[in-house]
Amino acid sequence: MDFPSKLIESAVEEVAKLPGIGKKTALRLVLHLLKRDEEQTQRLAETLQAMRTNVTYCRKCHNLSDEELCSICANRKRDASLICVVEDIRDVLAIENTAQFKGLYHVLGGIISPVEGIGPSDLHIDSLVERLRSDESEQVREVILALSPTMEGDTTAFYLQKKLRPFKVKISTIARGVPIGGDLEYADEVTLGRSILSRIAYE
Amino acid sequence: MDFPSKLIESAVEEVAKLPGIGKKTALRLVLHLLKRDEEQTQRLAETLQAMRTNVTYCRKCHNLSDEELCSICANRKRDASLICVVEDIRDVLAIENTAQFKGLYHVLGGIISPVEGIGPSDLHIDSLVERLRSDESEQVREVILALSPTMEGDTTAFYLQKKLRPFKVKISTIARGVPIGGDLEYADEVTLGRSILSRIAYE
Repeated sequence: MDFPSKLIESAVEEVAKLPGIGKKTALRLVLHLLKRDEEQTQRLAETLQAMRTNVTYCRKCHNLSDEELCSICANRKRDASLICVVEDIRDVLAIENTAQFKGLYHVLGGIISPVEGIGPSDLHIDSLVERLRSDESEQVREVILALSPTMEGDTTAFYLQKKLRPFKVKISTIARGVPIGGDLEYADEVTLGRSILSRIAYE
Repeated sequence: MDFPSKLIESAVEEVAKLPGIGKKTALRLVLHLLKRDEEQTQRLAETLQAMRTNVTYCRKCHNLSDEELCSICANRKRDASLICVVEDIRDVLAIENTAQFKGLYHVLGGIISPVEGIGPSDLHIDSLVERLRSDESEQVREVILALSPTMEGDTTAFYLQKKLRPFKVKISTIARGVPIGGDLEYADEVTLGRSILSRIAYE
C-alpha cells in the first residue's frame, strides 16, 4: 500500500507487528484513533508504556505483578498449603475466574517443548523446587499440576513429578474427561476413552 | 476478569476500546508486548502519538497528509483535469493501488446518510464546489464520482451531480457490473440486471 502520509504509514507498520493484526486491520485501527479524541490515543500510548516499563514478576510465584510480591502471594487469606503449577499468566486468570481455587500459584513461564527448543532450564522449575525445599514448617501439602492435556503438558508434568517426589507433598493433576455441557457423541475418542479408564465413583 | 496487576488491567482496557478487539484479544496483545523488547512498545506508543498529533488534512482535497498540501495534490505529474470524489481515505488507497488513476482526489469524509444523521453540510461538499468555482482557467474537465454502489452512495452521487451541474465539467461515475473473475451465476440479480441495462459496445 502506498500511503499519502508517512506518519500513518509508520503507525500502521508498528500496529501490524502485533500478532493476528494485518496491514488492513492496522489501518482500520489507526483511522479509528484519528476519528476519536486525541486524548484517547494519548491514554492508550501512555498506559502501554507504563505497563511495559513498570510491570514486574512476583519473586515467589513468577506471576505478573505491580509489586515485588503479587497480590495473590501477598494475600494472607489464601491457602498456602496448596500450590497450583500453571504454564502462564493466562492460566492463572482462567483459574481465578472459576473462583474454585483459594491456594497459591507457581507460573512456569512456558512448557517443555523440544520442538521449540524449550527445556526444563528455561522454565521456573528450580524456583519451585527451592520453594518446597525452603518450606521448613512443611506448610505446603499439595502441588496441583494444571497443565494443558497435550504432549508437551504431559512431558512437563512427568518431569515435575520426578523432581518433586523427594518432598513430602501430594502431587495431583487437574481432572481430564468430557467437558461439562458437551454432547457425548461429539467428544473425541481419546478424551472419551480416557474418561472411561479414569472413571470416578458415583456419590 | 480479575487481573493480578492494575497496570495490565488498564492497558487491556485501553486496547479493548479499539474496534473489533475484545478483552481476550487485548490481553493477548498486551502479553505479547511484555514478551518483546521494551523498545517495541516504546516505538508503538511514540508512533501512535506522533501520528495522532501531527497528521493533518490536505487543505485542497481533505486527504490525510503530513503537510498542508498532500503528496498527491502537490505532485505536478498528476493530471489536474480529473477529480475523483471518494468517501474516505481508504478509498483513495484502494484506487491508488489499482495504478489506473493519475488525477487528483476529493475526500468527502463520509456519505449522506439520513439514518446516521449525516447531511450534506457534514461533508466536504462546499469545498468541492469552491474548488470548481475558483478554477478560473477551467483546468478541471471531469469529476468522477467513485462512491459505493449503495443507497447512501447513490443519494450522495445524486446530490453532488445537482450541485455540480452549473459548472462546465463532465460528471461520471465508476462502472457498475459483474466483478471480473466472478461467476455469472453467483452475481446477484440487481447487479446482473443493471449490467444488462447499462451494457457497453463490444470493441
